[in-house]
Amino acid sequence: MRAADVLVETLTAQGVDLCFTNPGTTEMHLVAALDRHPAMRSVLCLFEGVATGAADGYARIAGKPAATLFHLGPGLANGLANLHNARRAHSPVVNIIGDHARAHLPLDPPLASDIAGMAGPVSRWVETVVDPGEAAEKTVAAVRAAYGPAPGVASLILPADCAWDENAPPPIGAQDMPGRKPVAESTIAAAAEALRAAKSPVIFLGGPALGEAGLRAAGRIAAATGARLVMETFPARVARGAGRVSAVRLNYFAEGAANDLKDADLMLLAGARAPISFFAYPGKPASFVPEGATLHEFGTAADNLAPALAALADALGAPADPPLAPRATAPAIGNPEAKLNAAQVGLSLLRYLKDGAIICDDSTTSGLGVYSWLENGPDHDWLCLTGGAIGLGMPLAVGAALAAPGRPVISLNGDGAAAYTLQALWTQAREGQKIVNIVFANHSYLILNVELAKLGDGPPGAIARRMLSLDEPRLDWVKLAQGFGVEAQRASTVGAFDAALEAALAADGPQLLVAEV
Amino acid sequence: MRAADVLVETLTAQGVDLCFTNPGTTEMHLVAALDRHPAMRSVLCLFEGVATGAADGYARIAGKPAATLFHLGPGLANGLANLHNARRAHSPVVNIIGDHARAHLPLDPPLASDIAGMAGPVSRWVETVVDPGEAAEKTVAAVRAAYGPAPGVASLILPADCAWDENAPPPIGAQDMPGRKPVAESTIAAAAEALRAAKSPVIFLGGPALGEAGLRAAGRIAAATGARLVMETFPARVARGAGRVSAVRLNYFAEGAANDLKDADLMLLAGARAPISFFAYPGKPASFVPEGATLHEFGTAADNLAPALAALADALGAPADPPLAPRATAPAIGNPEAKLNAAQVGLSLLRYLKDGAIICDDSTTSGLGVYSWLENGPDHDWLCLTGGAIGLGMPLAVGAALAAPGRPVISLNGDGAAAYTLQALWTQAREGQKIVNIVFANHSYLILNVELAKLGDGPPGAIARRMLSLDEPRLDWVKLAQGFGVEAQRASTVGAFDAALEAALAADGPQLLVAEV
Repeated sequence: MRAADVLVETLTAQGVDLCFTNPGTTEMHLVAALDRHPAMRSVLCLFEGVATGAADGYARIAGKPAATLFHLGPGLANGLANLHNARRAHSPVVNIIGDHARAHLPLDPPLASDIAGMAGPVSRWVETVVDPGEAAEKTVAAVRAAYGPAPGVASLILPADCAWDENAPPPIGAQDMPGRKPVAESTIAAAAEALRAAKSPVIFLGGPALGEAGLRAAGRIAAATGARLVMETFPARVARGAGRVSAVRLNYFAEGAANDLKDADLMLLAGARAPISFFAYPGKPASFVPEGATLHEFGTAADNLAPALAALADALGAPADPPLAPRATAPAIGNPEAKLNAAQVGLSLLRYLKDGAIICDDSTTSGLGVYSWLENGPDHDWLCLTGGAIGLGMPLAVGAALAAPGRPVISLNGDGAAAYTLQALWTQAREGQKIVNIVFANHSYLILNVELAKLGDGPPGAIARRMLSLDEPRLDWVKLAQGFGVEAQRASTVGAFDAALEAALAADGPQLLVAEV
Repeated sequence: MRAADVLVETLTAQGVDLCFTNPGTTEMHLVAALDRHPAMRSVLCLFEGVATGAADGYARIAGKPAATLFHLGPGLANGLANLHNARRAHSPVVNIIGDHARAHLPLDPPLASDIAGMAGPVSRWVETVVDPGEAAEKTVAAVRAAYGPAPGVASLILPADCAWDENAPPPIGAQDMPGRKPVAESTIAAAAEALRAAKSPVIFLGGPALGEAGLRAAGRIAAATGARLVMETFPARVARGAGRVSAVRLNYFAEGAANDLKDADLMLLAGARAPISFFAYPGKPASFVPEGATLHEFGTAADNLAPALAALADALGAPADPPLAPRATAPAIGNPEAKLNAAQVGLSLLRYLKDGAIICDDSTTSGLGVYSWLENGPDHDWLCLTGGAIGLGMPLAVGAALAAPGRPVISLNGDGAAAYTLQALWTQAREGQKIVNIVFANHSYLILNVELAKLGDGPPGAIARRMLSLDEPRLDWVKLAQGFGVEAQRASTVGAFDAALEAALAADGPQLLVAEV
């Protein structure tokens, strides 16, 4: 059997049945194999950064890996930034990267490069198929590595001659895959004791603790102990809405974070690492842990935290049900001619979203303005930019929509970020996805203007201002979206945006709304 | 003095006075420094792959490095594919990559990654400033490494606290930089002897041999010895036109390459490596060197080949002037309503280009159709996709236009390739560059359809066809260009394209022409 077919069949047998592709000549036998195995769905992306962001979004919602298929080192390189985000999200992803035939590689042809070297920084597992006989077993190993126990990125390099070999051993059927580890009973008992002894405990939640069940258990613990629930600033996925327990989202800036954690004498870490600042600043501390607070590790991203938190709640004699806030509803629009801002975008979303939406947020400053309005609104999942590599929002939406075809997907994008991977719009159009992409057009890298002002060097000069500005010329996002086959509208007032959002959510295919803020 | 300022001043003192940027928070002190040092021109790019492609284009035309400024590992990652092309082009490039402050990095904040690991595969030199005291000397070392002797990519990592330190030693003034090495007299004598002894010699030219002077010398050698002049398939830059000596461009496919080199009993390698196939195919040989031919190494990309070839011509008693073909002129348009094809694009270029144009080719199949028509037309430089990483054409044009503001620049782009780095159009508009971007819209990855057919698996099925098709939906390149602030037109007939090209070449700012082929 041809090794390329063995690889594809082995992937689908492990439940990896979706592949985001941008193949080239070295991958032609894999393309032919995909043609013969319709159990694997292939989704073409115009740029590899779209494919990796989509694989991340798929993994966050489906809880299992998609595959990618890339053309040698440069193909992988174009996908690295969103693989960096996937790594930080603990998203399982299986990269298949074609390479030159084994005998060809030492000749150093133009497309040759150190693929394993490029893959290393974003992958928890990198291997090369060095003989067609191991195609099946290394494919299983890649999927296994992606699963965990802490899920992550696995990269399998397949030389062209290992793909085209006709005498490979048969595919391997479904194997058990590792899952997150259970938390030890002694850890649960120790946490209960620490919480009972603390005066002002904070449960710092992240990763797998931020699903509906984990938050529900955390809410019970909070009810029993008075602990405050705070979560990491950029979680991979957090369940939100009136039906869910809310945690305070740790402020991005040091001053706000200090306030969020004020007076804490215990920080119980559940799926999140001890909080630190995103960047270092001259003379400022990097840790947000309040002085005198004890750090208590309950579990990491590799642990199965929802049942552990439930057991902890039971150990603390917590009530069976956590208190929930009443469902928030949006007020009627005051002045429809008022200038649009991020908060009004949040209110429009609150007004029109139904339970079950998925929000993919890659809009640093504006997303923060939307976030709080949906706190107790319709139930939804909010997905963050986990690794700080902008250009994730629209690709993430591609993957999320494939993982949950019935759920509406919203992407929130800064205009600077959206310009990174706008090719995602084409895949959205091609696949007919029900995605509403909101681009916040402030015509600058706004967060960087904030950072530049913080240097204390005085007002920036013309050169620096121009380096952080997206004016001259302004991007016309309506035309860019239409160019990729996506319907688009622009709104600069509260009323216009509200009407456009209502219409976009009712549309069949992808939509883009430019929010002039 | 602040280390960030020391770095910028040291760069400009070495003649590195252009910087393609997409900075972030860790680079804010460098942004502030650029604000204070207008001798360094900063050009903002919406995506790092545009910046690295532009740096490559600048280097190929200016013959000296530009700098880039990137935001940690993900920023660099987005630029890697075009750095791969730059590496293959032997283009000098100096990357400055910001990193977290030294004390912050061990905390593993979200944007932390192995930057040096990512830079390694594309760089000939990677170093980190580990103390602000070495900012100046490591900056000089980076520029020196970019220069050579074989030019390439140098990557300097600058932690934020090494940038913001106020007590760095002063900048270092202009230093001598390495250049290409002279070819030894004994090598020249040996080459003369080999050429005299050969019956059917081929001089295989590449890299620095393909400038006007190198080709002129090669033409003299050919006149004296009957040697055939063949050049590598994808040179970084080749001087062409009626005023220049032409070499046969080695065919991409094995069958054609064998014909180009038929009967050669000697291959003198001058700046090119021994010819091999771009990819390996089952059962086919990788080397294009004819059986029985002797390979004779005259010089590599690290050698100063133009004077060496002139000395070789002298040693062979070659005539002072090589024969030149008469200047080609384009015939009048036959049927203006005829369907457009790549050859007709070539004829329109021949009709309207003036001496001095720069052509940046990232259009695999269509570019080959244009290439031959300009053989003895107006003098121009043709720049190729050296590393096979598509998405270079429009970025390359950005850099070429900055290196030679008075020269018209044309980029030739496959539609698949253009979709990779279309953000380059915005920088072209922002900088008011005189660039005509031609996008060949065949709505598919055409070369891959050729490769798929070569597998011999029979006609491809629906899945494979869809994976190589850019239809569903068609990209609207007119709207995409306008979205980035670039004027655009579409042409599907010979007459319409011809008129559009004439107008575009006369326009002040950047233009995009969609050639429906």
